[in-house]
Amino acid sequence: MKHSRNLLGLIEALRALPGVGPKTAQRMAFHLLQEGRPGAHALVAALGTALDSVHRCARCRMLTDEELCSLCASQGRDRSLLCVVESPADVVAVETSGSYQGLYFVLMGHLSPLDGIGPDELGARDLALILAEGGVQELILATNPTVEGEATAHYLSELAHAHGVRASRIAHGVPMGGELEYVDGGTLAHALAGRQLVS
Amino acid sequence: MKHSRNLLGLIEALRALPGVGPKTAQRMAFHLLQEGRPGAHALVAALGTALDSVHRCARCRMLTDEELCSLCASQGRDRSLLCVVESPADVVAVETSGSYQGLYFVLMGHLSPLDGIGPDELGARDLALILAEGGVQELILATNPTVEGEATAHYLSELAHAHGVRASRIAHGVPMGGELEYVDGGTLAHALAGRQLVS
Repeated sequence: MKHSRNLLGLIEALRALPGVGPKTAQRMAFHLLQEGRPGAHALVAALGTALDSVHRCARCRMLTDEELCSLCASQGRDRSLLCVVESPADVVAVETSGSYQGLYFVLMGHLSPLDGIGPDELGARDLALILAEGGVQELILATNPTVEGEATAHYLSELAHAHGVRASRIAHGVPMGGELEYVDGGTLAHALAGRQLVS
Repeated sequence: MKHSRNLLGLIEALRALPGVGPKTAQRMAFHLLQEGRPGAHALVAALGTALDSVHRCARCRMLTDEELCSLCASQGRDRSLLCVVESPADVVAVETSGSYQGLYFVLMGHLSPLDGIGPDELGARDLALILAEGGVQELILATNPTVEGEATAHYLSELAHAHGVRASRIAHGVPMGGELEYVDGGTLAHALAGRQLVS
């Protein structure tokens, strides 16, 4: 089936969305051009506006329209804690947990020398400037428990120590509600190594 | 987590896409505003162009940029066969099967009186005009095997008969590769009722 040029162009363009293959892209295109037209117009406008206006927070590198993101601009956060995460989605995940009141620093990736991603690409200089200010007392390393994430955490812990700041790593272990039987060996090893005495 | 206004606007707008919930929309937005920026610009352009230029084929109501879609404009199709389907995706599905050389008529829906969708909304008048031309010898009813699809097929078969055109319904039965054990009763009933003598 050969679609006409602009329809085909839309189907191809929709594949820029994460997790969207040719079949889903086609379904989306048909929807947007039929009953979804009002939403499609709104999407063109919203995406255009966002591309023009959304950039990184000057302080934490979170995505925002403003100079500072709502968290960095807030007066109610604990400025002695700085949690380093790999992506904006991680900020949302930690915020949703409701268990953290400090600020964030978003790396937008992890160390990956083969891809040309070194400390500079992750904003290590901006982070060093924040640490040098002296307000941060603990740098919480919440990068992903992958090889790259661990390497990034290790690098950042040294950066923190160089500025006389305490560095901590979030705990890795059996997820709540998870069953030991189905947890992988690496996670179990972390869970055992990170065991804590009960009183 | 309160996102800034335009970022939130983009996340909401992405929910216009079929099958996209709040979490996927957020993931898409973050992707489009970070590593996916070139693709995002291309998507704005392609969607804008498609919204302006893609409309329904003047003859079969398939989505196309042209006056006539590539199938209706083609000289190599059998114009005595007209296959009626509910959506453009159905045209693609039948074309992909490679087993049909006739033309199509796309209803863009099915009869649904409660939603205000009657014959006029499905282009029944355009279809009647095509049948009145006299070239079509068989109207193949390939609407979905749902209550609405069956009702639509029934209505269209009467329309065909009124124009002296033969109407046929595609076969429903056990799908190829399917196992009888796991096929639902309605499908099995159709498969039995539609049984054919083997020679």
